[in-house]
Amino acid sequence: MPNTPIEPHSGTLHDNSHTRTERIYFEHTDFSGVVYHARYLDFLEHGRSDYVRMLGVHHSELASGAYGESLAFAVHRMEMDFKRAARIDDVIVVETERGTLVGPKLTFNQRITRNGDLLLTAAVSVVLVNQQGKPRRYPKELLRKLGVE
Amino acid sequence: MPNTPIEPHSGTLHDNSHTRTERIYFEHTDFSGVVYHARYLDFLEHGRSDYVRMLGVHHSELASGAYGESLAFAVHRMEMDFKRAARIDDVIVVETERGTLVGPKLTFNQRITRNGDLLLTAAVSVVLVNQQGKPRRYPKELLRKLGVE
Amino acid sequence: MPNTPIEPHSGTLHDNSHTRTERIYFEHTDFSGVVYHARYLDFLEHGRSDYVRMLGVHHSELASGAYGESLAFAVHRMEMDFKRAARIDDVIVVETERGTLVGPKLTFNQRITRNGDLLLTAAVSVVLVNQQGKPRRYPKELLRKLGVE
Amino acid sequence: MPNTPIEPHSGTLHDNSHTRTERIYFEHTDFSGVVYHARYLDFLEHGRSDYVRMLGVHHSELASGAYGESLAFAVHRMEMDFKRAARIDDVIVVETERGTLVGPKLTFNQRITRNGDLLLTAAVSVVLVNQQGKPRRYPKELLRKLGVE
Repeated sequence: MPNTPIEPHSGTLHDNSHTRTERIYFEHTDFSGVVYHARYLDFLEHGRSDYVRMLGVHHSELASGAYGESLAFAVHRMEMDFKRAARIDDVIVVETERGTLVGPKLTFNQRITRNGDLLLTAAVSVVLVNQQGKPRRYPKELLRKLGVE
Repeated sequence: MPNTPIEPHSGTLHDNSHTRTERIYFEHTDFSGVVYHARYLDFLEHGRSDYVRMLGVHHSELASGAYGESLAFAVHRMEMDFKRAARIDDVIVVETERGTLVGPKLTFNQRITRNGDLLLTAAVSVVLVNQQGKPRRYPKELLRKLGVE
Repeated sequence: MPNTPIEPHSGTLHDNSHTRTERIYFEHTDFSGVVYHARYLDFLEHGRSDYVRMLGVHHSELASGAYGESLAFAVHRMEMDFKRAARIDDVIVVETERGTLVGPKLTFNQRITRNGDLLLTAAVSVVLVNQQGKPRRYPKELLRKLGVE
Repeated sequence: MPNTPIEPHSGTLHDNSHTRTERIYFEHTDFSGVVYHARYLDFLEHGRSDYVRMLGVHHSELASGAYGESLAFAVHRMEMDFKRAARIDDVIVVETERGTLVGPKLTFNQRITRNGDLLLTAAVSVVLVNQQGKPRRYPKELLRKLGVE
């Protein structure tokens, strides 16, 4: 077998946003025949993770203490509107738009589509927490990478 | 081994609400040391499912066409505020309060606590869909069981 | 709402085994109408976790360094035979039988049934690893609690 | 945002095998710091699904009754050996080798690696079941697509 497999695609960067695609597999669906609602949160998380990864921000680096202490992103608030459901084998597009920084909270506006049809919208507010779960201000260097002023 | 194992506890019914407990296992946590945010949606779903189950409404019966056609609950909108995080081995309490019926949407207000500390609140709006994913009005008999007028 | 909710039931201890029940929810099923095969591993893990919990062994305690360094259980090998599938709303019984200790590996024999019908059997070998993922011999005190000589 | 996002990569076909890569996200890890053992079954399933997809076999088509009745793949037996653990942000490679057909069972040999290091091996036997869960012989046309004689 080959020694140089193709890396998973982390999506495409735009000015203030990011897009990536996902495939729907068995594990995402439920007995009602469509994707189980909580699985979309994983797709949204992949979108945010790949967005910040392409901006040079890595979870492993945050956890390792590169910014002073061990840090991790934590979702603080979510609003989701489910419009249509995805099905097995579907390809969906996850769009992530960077919002604004309000105190320790960074917001993202996200949408999932399939062939141009809107499946859901989400507004997500994310904080940075230390090992004890305490919210921390985003370090300046991190904000610079994320393109937030 | 015994032939009469103790049934999983479906929680406790109150006037317009329901409570049940859950244990946190490996699968619910992530590398940051706490419960991964999307897992709470499963706990909330268990709460709603057990609530309506204790009122005599079963997913298997809905799917079997007992109300005319094959039906399933589908989440239409969610708002969640994450306050504190649960950890491995924790016991959490899921509280589900029946809200109101607005057109085809039934709302639930939910909270998760641990030893009295609030972990999260959620407002969830649920519709009934047929096999093609079309929203259906809640059948009267179903509303009667759910105690919604 | 009540201040004293009923604790999740951790199952029943027998001489060299443990049984507990589980309910099947939306999240466990897939579009084929039955439980997705990988979800049974969660039920098996719950069985092993509750078994050792009832014997006084807690993941949080292991992780906290109570036995010298931070430790966690890790699955080393699994064999599974799937016979029948569970469906939404089903109640299943998870039986866990303690096997033997071979070097650093502790084995468990597990089965899942529904109304007496066998759904699957599993042979699971579990090691104890430190933070770096290195297998560690089970501490004597731990083996004593687990009833393994 | 763009109208032509890059499709998720379904991997690379070889003579009797298939390789694809995956990224490790929050949802795959647990509090012990590494990937939770049951998540690897999802990666293995993605490997098998993308393999047969590239050979022209689609779950949605099977379910739609294209081969006479509604059919779905179901895992019948698995053996897994866990060697090393993956961590957040890692890229892993899933290799799937088609085995043989024995009666109604099709076998696959799979391995997951990271930078050439073996993380796990799996032997998986898969049957085709109808809506009632009854195993069905693989249709000839399907075997032809899968390259199995």
